Amino acid sequence: MDARTQGPLAPDHVVDLVRVLDAVRSGRASTRPELAQATGLGRNVVTQRVARLMDSGLLVEGPPLRSTGGRAPRALRFPADAGRMLVAELGATSIGAAVSDLEGTLLAQYEEDADVTMGPVTVLTRVAEVFDELLQQLGAGAPIWGLGIGLPGPVEFATGRPVAPPIMPGWDGFDVRAFFAGRFQAPVWVDNDVNVMALGELRSGQAKGLRDVVYVKIGSGIGAGLVSQGVLHRGAQGCAGDIGHVIVEEGSTVLCRCGKFGCLEALAGGAALGRDGETAAREGDSAYLADLLASGDTIDARAVSEAAIHGDPVAIKLLAASARLVGQTLARIVNFFNPSLILVGGGVSEAGDYYLAEVRQTVIGRSLPLATRSLQIVRSGLSDRAGLRGAAHMVMDALLSPEILPTWLDQGTPAGRAELAAQ
Amino acid sequence: MDARTQGPLAPDHVVDLVRVLDAVRSGRASTRPELAQATGLGRNVVTQRVARLMDSGLLVEGPPLRSTGGRAPRALRFPADAGRMLVAELGATSIGAAVSDLEGTLLAQYEEDADVTMGPVTVLTRVAEVFDELLQQLGAGAPIWGLGIGLPGPVEFATGRPVAPPIMPGWDGFDVRAFFAGRFQAPVWVDNDVNVMALGELRSGQAKGLRDVVYVKIGSGIGAGLVSQGVLHRGAQGCAGDIGHVIVEEGSTVLCRCGKFGCLEALAGGAALGRDGETAAREGDSAYLADLLASGDTIDARAVSEAAIHGDPVAIKLLAASARLVGQTLARIVNFFNPSLILVGGGVSEAGDYYLAEVRQTVIGRSLPLATRSLQIVRSGLSDRAGLRGAAHMVMDALLSPEILPTWLDQGTPAGRAELAAQ
Repeated sequence: MDARTQGPLAPDHVVDLVRVLDAVRSGRASTRPELAQATGLGRNVVTQRVARLMDSGLLVEGPPLRSTGGRAPRALRFPADAGRMLVAELGATSIGAAVSDLEGTLLAQYEEDADVTMGPVTVLTRVAEVFDELLQQLGAGAPIWGLGIGLPGPVEFATGRPVAPPIMPGWDGFDVRAFFAGRFQAPVWVDNDVNVMALGELRSGQAKGLRDVVYVKIGSGIGAGLVSQGVLHRGAQGCAGDIGHVIVEEGSTVLCRCGKFGCLEALAGGAALGRDGETAAREGDSAYLADLLASGDTIDARAVSEAAIHGDPVAIKLLAASARLVGQTLARIVNFFNPSLILVGGGVSEAGDYYLAEVRQTVIGRSLPLATRSLQIVRSGLSDRAGLRGAAHMVMDALLSPEILPTWLDQGTPAGRAELAAQ
Repeated sequence: MDARTQGPLAPDHVVDLVRVLDAVRSGRASTRPELAQATGLGRNVVTQRVARLMDSGLLVEGPPLRSTGGRAPRALRFPADAGRMLVAELGATSIGAAVSDLEGTLLAQYEEDADVTMGPVTVLTRVAEVFDELLQQLGAGAPIWGLGIGLPGPVEFATGRPVAPPIMPGWDGFDVRAFFAGRFQAPVWVDNDVNVMALGELRSGQAKGLRDVVYVKIGSGIGAGLVSQGVLHRGAQGCAGDIGHVIVEEGSTVLCRCGKFGCLEALAGGAALGRDGETAAREGDSAYLADLLASGDTIDARAVSEAAIHGDPVAIKLLAASARLVGQTLARIVNFFNPSLILVGGGVSEAGDYYLAEVRQTVIGRSLPLATRSLQIVRSGLSDRAGLRGAAHMVMDALLSPEILPTWLDQGTPAGRAELAAQ
């Protein structure tokens, strides 16, 4: 009664296929006997499922291993080089793009300044050009299995469309999937940039193996990515983690890009630091920043960080105020979500150790003792690669999920598989 | 190579057993052929797993069904009446206790006023007496499979111990599991009361089948229970959802029971409403409350609600202020967690529809459009039974989990199983 390697895939067996593939990809098993052990499936079932996965190119077999008696087992592996993925991470002011293999290793990558407010067609056309250039650099190779894109705003994950993104005028509802699918004939997944970074850290960074994690990005904007029970928590509309637009100062007169007053991002984000630094420079409160301004430099968050490192008291005060506001918000999150690890990424977090120290102190002082007992608050180690690697994991997670794997397996060729792009 | 019905249970098969049991308990399958279909397991495997579960009393077989040819299949069912559970929900000022069957149906229940500050031995001794009385009422019957207790403070779920609970002096670190295990010879699970309520709504209430839910209890204290991906999110130390002790008013002089100033609970909880209502009564701001006080009544949250229902403007103002503070906190939670449903329970939420209306309005005004697009904020329908039913589900979830099921099956008798209590 079991499905053989031919014909449409019985839904009952999808769970087995995912189990077998996971066991090989995670390194828990590499031979058929090990797979039987690791998955709890019978040997015959394992043999059949492996055959099906090999037919579809999702497993390949190495030479026979040394045997301890009986037929020598052969090592199976997931062919990371059988396909490629195109991944991109858009920030408010930058584009990062890469080609990765099927395990998320970046084969070629590129970054340049960009302005997300130029609108989706302009920005995504440039991303597509960068993809073409990177592919040309790498030369002929494995087909493209999928694309993964991180955007700096709320994204409805199911459709891949930005929804009323505060800092991305013109992007609301834009069909990012269709744009790339049309050009690269491969399926596309789109998510919020911070979710993608959290996924990168979860799969190949400091959050690996943890169940309760919050990734906070403090760049020109502020956002968070959540991990619950070892899995990305995207929320009902896929917009969980949008902490930049919570009102942290009642009656504030500081207008946020989202249209409200007193949002965390408007008061503590990178743009806010630049704005307040420039004011301090113009009003002569900070000699260091005034000098920078006079010499023609733009006063942005980076300039404020630099001034702080040089001991400028106003810059230190600005950064400390930002860190305290971020810490207050994180304290609430700690009480609410009780993570074991908070990873802090983004430009502002690079301002120096005392920024993180101030964040930590604020969180500890305002949270329940139980929630902070073994809480770690550290800098994201993957830094700028977290988003690109996370985007690659997002695509493979989707392709190998119980929902999509059957369709994927039923389409024999990469071209056939590209039909997935239209879904 | 498969484990037969005898001998220790191979870990490989535990997943199958859980699958088979889940399929029967959820109603997705009742015959062996249906089980093969629903679980994707082979017929022989299903037959073996069913035999094992029947041996252990976790499945029972009915008479043969009408056959459409071939041997007539027999319907299997989970014997909800094979065991009983003792469940209790402790509030700051009350004890609720019940005996339930294995599906969480309450067979007998009881509630009385109590004061959690009397300390664990006094309070839990009373709970144990109530259990004895309820069992006596019901008469001889099925053995006790487990106990589930909800406590009004942070609990480290893994050990079942309260950790620095703000409103429970003397309870810090108390071994609640050992206390009951010693008396009832059955395993015990303990969790925060609001987690248990959220679980009740998730399994047998309005949250059934949903993936992203927040349950908020606004009683004398304030707390939340979270559901992520259809599963209770307890957090790293099991204290997720503790929103009562986030500071919502900087520089506030209102001291909270937790020792900090300006906590949500201290400003918006039931105790706060009672305190502010009494002040209004004493200072003559509210004629209605002053009359109540003069006639010897205590001015508590219930009295303030009553006054509001009678149109007393001060009471209405107090409730509106509470609702706004709760709404502000929920708005942050909506942005951060993006639930599709917020269930509001607890005494204060019963103040009337306009309390919830004020909460809703505040949340909508302060959250991202995407996050509130299909958000529902409604009263908890299970109300006071949510906690007791949730406690029952907590026990069965634990007993039938892949971690505990093998031990449970290996102990043939209820007495043997009670050894689990010591773990």
